[in-house]
Amino acid sequence: MNITIKDIAELAGVAKSTVSRYLNGGNVSEKTKEKIRKVIAETNYEPNSFAQSLKAKKTNFIGVIAPTLDSYVTSTVLMAIDEELRKRDYTTLIISTSKHVEREIESLISLSRQKVDGIILIATGVTEKHIETINSIQIPVLIVAQEVDQCNCIINDDYQAGYKMGQYIVGKGHLSVAYIGVTESDIAVGQRRKQGILDGLAEAGVSDIKTYISEFDLHDAAKVTNDMLENFTPTAIICATDTIAFGAMKTISKLGKKVPDDFSLTGFGGYNISEVIHPALTTIRFKNEATGVMAAETIIKMTEGYGVPELQVSGFEFVEGESVKSLKS
Amino acid sequence: MNITIKDIAELAGVAKSTVSRYLNGGNVSEKTKEKIRKVIAETNYEPNSFAQSLKAKKTNFIGVIAPTLDSYVTSTVLMAIDEELRKRDYTTLIISTSKHVEREIESLISLSRQKVDGIILIATGVTEKHIETINSIQIPVLIVAQEVDQCNCIINDDYQAGYKMGQYIVGKGHLSVAYIGVTESDIAVGQRRKQGILDGLAEAGVSDIKTYISEFDLHDAAKVTNDMLENFTPTAIICATDTIAFGAMKTISKLGKKVPDDFSLTGFGGYNISEVIHPALTTIRFKNEATGVMAAETIIKMTEGYGVPELQVSGFEFVEGESVKSLKS
Repeated sequence: MNITIKDIAELAGVAKSTVSRYLNGGNVSEKTKEKIRKVIAETNYEPNSFAQSLKAKKTNFIGVIAPTLDSYVTSTVLMAIDEELRKRDYTTLIISTSKHVEREIESLISLSRQKVDGIILIATGVTEKHIETINSIQIPVLIVAQEVDQCNCIINDDYQAGYKMGQYIVGKGHLSVAYIGVTESDIAVGQRRKQGILDGLAEAGVSDIKTYISEFDLHDAAKVTNDMLENFTPTAIICATDTIAFGAMKTISKLGKKVPDDFSLTGFGGYNISEVIHPALTTIRFKNEATGVMAAETIIKMTEGYGVPELQVSGFEFVEGESVKSLKS
Repeated sequence: MNITIKDIAELAGVAKSTVSRYLNGGNVSEKTKEKIRKVIAETNYEPNSFAQSLKAKKTNFIGVIAPTLDSYVTSTVLMAIDEELRKRDYTTLIISTSKHVEREIESLISLSRQKVDGIILIATGVTEKHIETINSIQIPVLIVAQEVDQCNCIINDDYQAGYKMGQYIVGKGHLSVAYIGVTESDIAVGQRRKQGILDGLAEAGVSDIKTYISEFDLHDAAKVTNDMLENFTPTAIICATDTIAFGAMKTISKLGKKVPDDFSLTGFGGYNISEVIHPALTTIRFKNEATGVMAAETIIKMTEGYGVPELQVSGFEFVEGESVKSLKS
């Protein structure tokens, strides 16, 4: 009789996806591991046969699914992943999804067809379908930038970064604040970062906060800023990304106003290019290189069957530029 | 007897690589094609068997080898290639080489092992070893950004773009000019673009030209500019890329000088971000999206065995910013 993963799952009384995860070196509780181990021993299912076959068939390719190739942050993470994997004799195959969530699913399947040893998914949003696909392809998958239950993830500390920014703005005496964010379907940036900012502001008693939604690109951000300023005149504008802040800056300058004299402005990103923009943007720089290295190290461990923490959090630093005016005397 | 490509090459009196190119739908003269066709017919070598086997085994993956992922120009070309290939039901697998030329060779081999239908190589320099590898892997390869004999290439019109910039600077009355370029191993940017600029300047009688070499990154460009200004004070600085111009701008601003009052400054690239930099940079924007679409269309034709032009040239537009001062009264 040919023992399948399904049989083991039934005998162990766990989900098939849990057995997959066990075999893939993913995160499974010790108790569940013990159950699965026992069933595998009893059924003579070749212990580690899946992991061994993986090793035997190792291609030394790691797939990376990226939402875009023209963002500073994504490019920095990608380059760091690529460098680190190359040091370990892996070749990185990158697929871009142009921020179409359904392409993330297609790409998981495409890369599994290409027999990569593991996949790093830099995600913009994670759906049920993602999780189903991840469980079905039987290749270790590491998710970067979004937190997903029962999956191995590396995220930025978006809440704390947002909180820090909110507190900084209040500390500079701003009581009337606009936040230009992004869609809530992006949990990390659209929800966590935003919530951190709002909590950081609210805790210090700022009540006059208005929030807006922009696309990730400069031109849409310029338009959103323009529409906003027709109805609301904040003293500070917090933007969800540096690119959105540059869009806001463009509109402010077009209206004959100045940063920070007329409007204080902040971003998140800490792009290289921000150094040559005047005034220098106050922003949060996530440790993108460290995230990339961590992602490469983690996916290699996963392909080799080692356990890895379910959630790893990458840090950030606050970068004070000259784009925020102190309103305190 | 099993007829090989080598046999056909010998019988037709041509190089093995020529037969490969013929079978791959690459560029072969009509006369040579006729010779090869004749040998194939005589030897009963299954006509089109290679092309047919290619078709039968079609994976609908196209590999793209890119020098970097954090350059605006490369990212724009990559995104355009990816979008166009996707429309035609191909999936793009990208490998980055971090500007290591030897990785371009490794990547050609890696992608051929991954059984892609064709490869687009966005090249920084092309060596003999490249050409050997391209001929040996028996997969259609299209080279973008560098011109290589007997290979299918798409290039920017670097000479004409440089020439245009040189003439513009002279037209504004500048007679003392610095050019900050890049290594000559990059034939397109390091040689052609430079030659265009020098010819454009020289034709109008500018004699006081000094040339410098920078890496492609902002920080090295800032350093090169700083070293230069200790010994030479031009009225205009022409930079090989926008990023180099931003580096120069950083140094100029650090020295308490202004663009364009103290130094006129130009780049090549036409990045989005340049819009929010003051003063707006005068630059040349290559038609990167058009190049990407052209590359995708061309590689598909090549995988399908159609002939394509050996050399295609992509255009540019001159973008006049506010970074050049007129010295004419």
